[in-house]
Amino acid sequence: YYLITQKDITSRLKRRAKFTHKGTYGHALIIAGAPKTMGAALLSAEACMCTGAGLTTACVPEEGLTALNTRVPEVMAILNENVNEDLTWKTYQAVGIGPGIGSSPESLALLTKTLKEYNKPVVIDADALNLIGQHHELMQIIPEGSVLTPHVKEFDRLFGEHVSWWDRVVTGIDRAKTMGCTILLKNQYTMIFTRDGKCLFNPTGSPAMASGGMGDVLTGIITSFIAQGYSPEDAVILGAYIHGAAGEEGNDYVVPASSLIKRLPATIATNYST
Amino acid sequence: YYLITQKDITSRLKRRAKFTHKGTYGHALIIAGAPKTMGAALLSAEACMCTGAGLTTACVPEEGLTALNTRVPEVMAILNENVNEDLTWKTYQAVGIGPGIGSSPESLALLTKTLKEYNKPVVIDADALNLIGQHHELMQIIPEGSVLTPHVKEFDRLFGEHVSWWDRVVTGIDRAKTMGCTILLKNQYTMIFTRDGKCLFNPTGSPAMASGGMGDVLTGIITSFIAQGYSPEDAVILGAYIHGAAGEEGNDYVVPASSLIKRLPATIATNYST
Amino acid sequence: YYLITQKDITSRLKRRAKFTHKGTYGHALIIAGAPKTMGAALLSAEACMCTGAGLTTACVPEEGLTALNTRVPEVMAILNENVNEDLTWKTYQAVGIGPGIGSSPESLALLTKTLKEYNKPVVIDADALNLIGQHHELMQIIPEGSVLTPHVKEFDRLFGEHVSWWDRVVTGIDRAKTMGCTILLKNQYTMIFTRDGKCLFNPTGSPAMASGGMGDVLTGIITSFIAQGYSPEDAVILGAYIHGAAGEEGNDYVVPASSLIKRLPATIATNYST
Amino acid sequence: YYLITQKDITSRLKRRAKFTHKGTYGHALIIAGAPKTMGAALLSAEACMCTGAGLTTACVPEEGLTALNTRVPEVMAILNENVNEDLTWKTYQAVGIGPGIGSSPESLALLTKTLKEYNKPVVIDADALNLIGQHHELMQIIPEGSVLTPHVKEFDRLFGEHVSWWDRVVTGIDRAKTMGCTILLKNQYTMIFTRDGKCLFNPTGSPAMASGGMGDVLTGIITSFIAQGYSPEDAVILGAYIHGAAGEEGNDYVVPASSLIKRLPATIATNYST
Repeated sequence: YYLITQKDITSRLKRRAKFTHKGTYGHALIIAGAPKTMGAALLSAEACMCTGAGLTTACVPEEGLTALNTRVPEVMAILNENVNEDLTWKTYQAVGIGPGIGSSPESLALLTKTLKEYNKPVVIDADALNLIGQHHELMQIIPEGSVLTPHVKEFDRLFGEHVSWWDRVVTGIDRAKTMGCTILLKNQYTMIFTRDGKCLFNPTGSPAMASGGMGDVLTGIITSFIAQGYSPEDAVILGAYIHGAAGEEGNDYVVPASSLIKRLPATIATNYST
Repeated sequence: YYLITQKDITSRLKRRAKFTHKGTYGHALIIAGAPKTMGAALLSAEACMCTGAGLTTACVPEEGLTALNTRVPEVMAILNENVNEDLTWKTYQAVGIGPGIGSSPESLALLTKTLKEYNKPVVIDADALNLIGQHHELMQIIPEGSVLTPHVKEFDRLFGEHVSWWDRVVTGIDRAKTMGCTILLKNQYTMIFTRDGKCLFNPTGSPAMASGGMGDVLTGIITSFIAQGYSPEDAVILGAYIHGAAGEEGNDYVVPASSLIKRLPATIATNYST
Repeated sequence: YYLITQKDITSRLKRRAKFTHKGTYGHALIIAGAPKTMGAALLSAEACMCTGAGLTTACVPEEGLTALNTRVPEVMAILNENVNEDLTWKTYQAVGIGPGIGSSPESLALLTKTLKEYNKPVVIDADALNLIGQHHELMQIIPEGSVLTPHVKEFDRLFGEHVSWWDRVVTGIDRAKTMGCTILLKNQYTMIFTRDGKCLFNPTGSPAMASGGMGDVLTGIITSFIAQGYSPEDAVILGAYIHGAAGEEGNDYVVPASSLIKRLPATIATNYST
Repeated sequence: YYLITQKDITSRLKRRAKFTHKGTYGHALIIAGAPKTMGAALLSAEACMCTGAGLTTACVPEEGLTALNTRVPEVMAILNENVNEDLTWKTYQAVGIGPGIGSSPESLALLTKTLKEYNKPVVIDADALNLIGQHHELMQIIPEGSVLTPHVKEFDRLFGEHVSWWDRVVTGIDRAKTMGCTILLKNQYTMIFTRDGKCLFNPTGSPAMASGGMGDVLTGIITSFIAQGYSPEDAVILGAYIHGAAGEEGNDYVVPASSLIKRLPATIATNYST
């Protein structure tokens, strides 16, 4: 058991070097949203962009395109219905999937396609976790090194009912090792289980973050760090810490998820090594 | 008669405790908007979110979905036309209904359904009050503990014509008791009539708030506080006070409703007990 | 010839008194926009709201409703196609017409209806002025006390070609008297011709305001002041001065019209009498 | 080889003079966007407006109109499908073409029409450069004095493969002269090749700008300066410098393109001669 410190962040976080260009920081793909649940996609894609990925593309339903363009014109789009023609996996250095995709057959098909065809780590969240919980055969095709970011209920849907957080720690440590995945469990404390059997606690965060959309933001952040070349473990550690640190700022009663996103570029810069 | 003081607020307002999560702060449902009057729904839902509800869902017409997603991606949506399939009352710790719903048969049906099926206090505002004024039989099925937030004209439509504000006080005190509801009357002074026969005056506010949409914002605030576990009376007292306090900031000539909303997370924090 | 001074503003501008409500500040109607030119309507309506009208309604085409709701949820809407059923003139203490309405037969019909049916001063701008220039019979039905806000080209389309700004002054003074209208001419200097034969120069403004949409904003400001009970002359004097003063702030190279709008509530407050 | 200094900027940049109006600062046309790639158009058009063009019109597909109006109501629109009726070239003092137009036959036709019919310098970027790379006959009809803003891959698609940046410098100097165009090459360093054979290096910029949409913003900036009457060379020098200077502010980890745009009016003002 290990409590993450700011030094763990400063030692991992790389400053952007002079004369680097957007190619240096990777291209992230956020597969999120459904016609009636586009908000999650908007938050996740904007968070990915504001964490510094060189390019961010969102794979969304056509119904969400006007909202996406209006809110985050920096983010490119692939439409769900054109995914077979327009999606080339090798374009992307990182893929995040799940926020707001729902449980339709089309979403299940898109998740299956992603897990089968993308040969690098995938960040799996929210509805994607629930779909895997319902279709346990998908567990077998999760790419080595992937990141799972369940909250407690999603954790139990994936790995069975647990009666205490301690029980979940035991399961988390075990599954991270056997699946070869990093698991971030959003519990009272955010815990990270790594492939090599460690259990890390994230110290940052604020109850002001107890508000809808925060998980969607975290998915975008972690995907962004992976796109920038961090290992999945480092991306999860950096992501959880920065997400919480941004939420601690300002001492407000509540931090809307979209407000937290705007703070990310400055919050990251406060964690450079000196 | 009692003038609310800041001490009444600091003694009621709970800080968000460490390690609480979004479930701690409830899930609020805002039933608002119609195809041509979506603005009220957007303001009410955003105010609810910015007052700290753990989750906010807006029940809106499909025509308003792009605007909702673009403005407040943190807010989830249920479409009016799918309400029979997609709405599960027990999901919500608080329901606010009325801003911009108009007077269509569909809105009447949705209001009737809400009053009949939701067994907990409902925050009733604007067009919902007018519909009750036109369909007095609905008065009988308003859930015990509900909150009514009429302005003077809506008050008279509900309870008959009055010739002076003093007359309305007498009626307000009486009806709050007999209906078992908290009534907030937006008069020159905002007055609150409680179920146990008290009449409270709210001291905060500013003429800069004399601008469209302020009532929609207040509905969102009160619904949010109920979702967070406050009693309807406390939610109304906190809501009226915080709403007015946010409007006093800045000394501008007018405060657009959307600007007031952005101040809510900070304004609430200035009213913590020390 | 008279140069407006800040004292003329402070002596006219009324602070919002305690316990006033949105009814005190009137309901303004902005008739603006067409399917492909909605931006002008959005700027004009938001400026009207931010200048402190109690309520603002925009009469716009249905195609613009999502943009209106998303940008300014405080503003209500009447759709052009429903104007005969949904528009009740006596609801409105002021009407502004013209920004972005184009020259379609429908716009001509709506302008004609407005001039015929609304018996109080109308603020006439942009395409509405051009339509009057093309249909000179409309000149006869402009309500007494109306406000015309042409730039130089629109002035000449209305009143014939002029070869110098001095010529326009002579015409402006004459027409303001004979038509019984206040004419604001956007020239190198903004000049105001009043019904009683005066010619006023507005001293505020900045070349940073030389940017699209500024006229639309001014129309919203003047309409807002009339809705609040100012005489058309006072509304024009206050509007021109405040518009220019907001544009002087910040010393930026250019002020986007939407940025200027956001400053209005604070700029007005800086011109209260002490 | 010459390194641009701040003095080169202050000596070129003209303050906006008193009593100038929007006509003084030209009307810019940004031809950008396609139904699924509207974000680039929004960024380019907003950047053009925020750099101080008197008027900005965007030529976009109808699908993007709601997003355009919502984000930048100051910008007018011409729809791609109406371009033959609604577009009058002499209206515009500058034209920028390319961001997000894709490679459809319609986009090729619109590019061809632009190069053929517009007799003044055109700013050519992104997909427009790729289309020229695929249809080399278009190279012949690029108007004298035009500006090309390729990144390294687009440069090679236009002028053939290169093995080093030095090779590209040699080609760039040659082609700028023979084509009579200013070429801005987005390399590790931004280089500018002028018609008279010079090669200039731009010293501003920050790795925080390594993020999607920055090129779209630069296109809008350069087009805006040309519309304001600067020579293409001066517009490119000013544009590259100001773009980079805006990106240097704030020391954040990353600067979203839309955030950089908001800084432009202030950044330009910091580069006035004293």
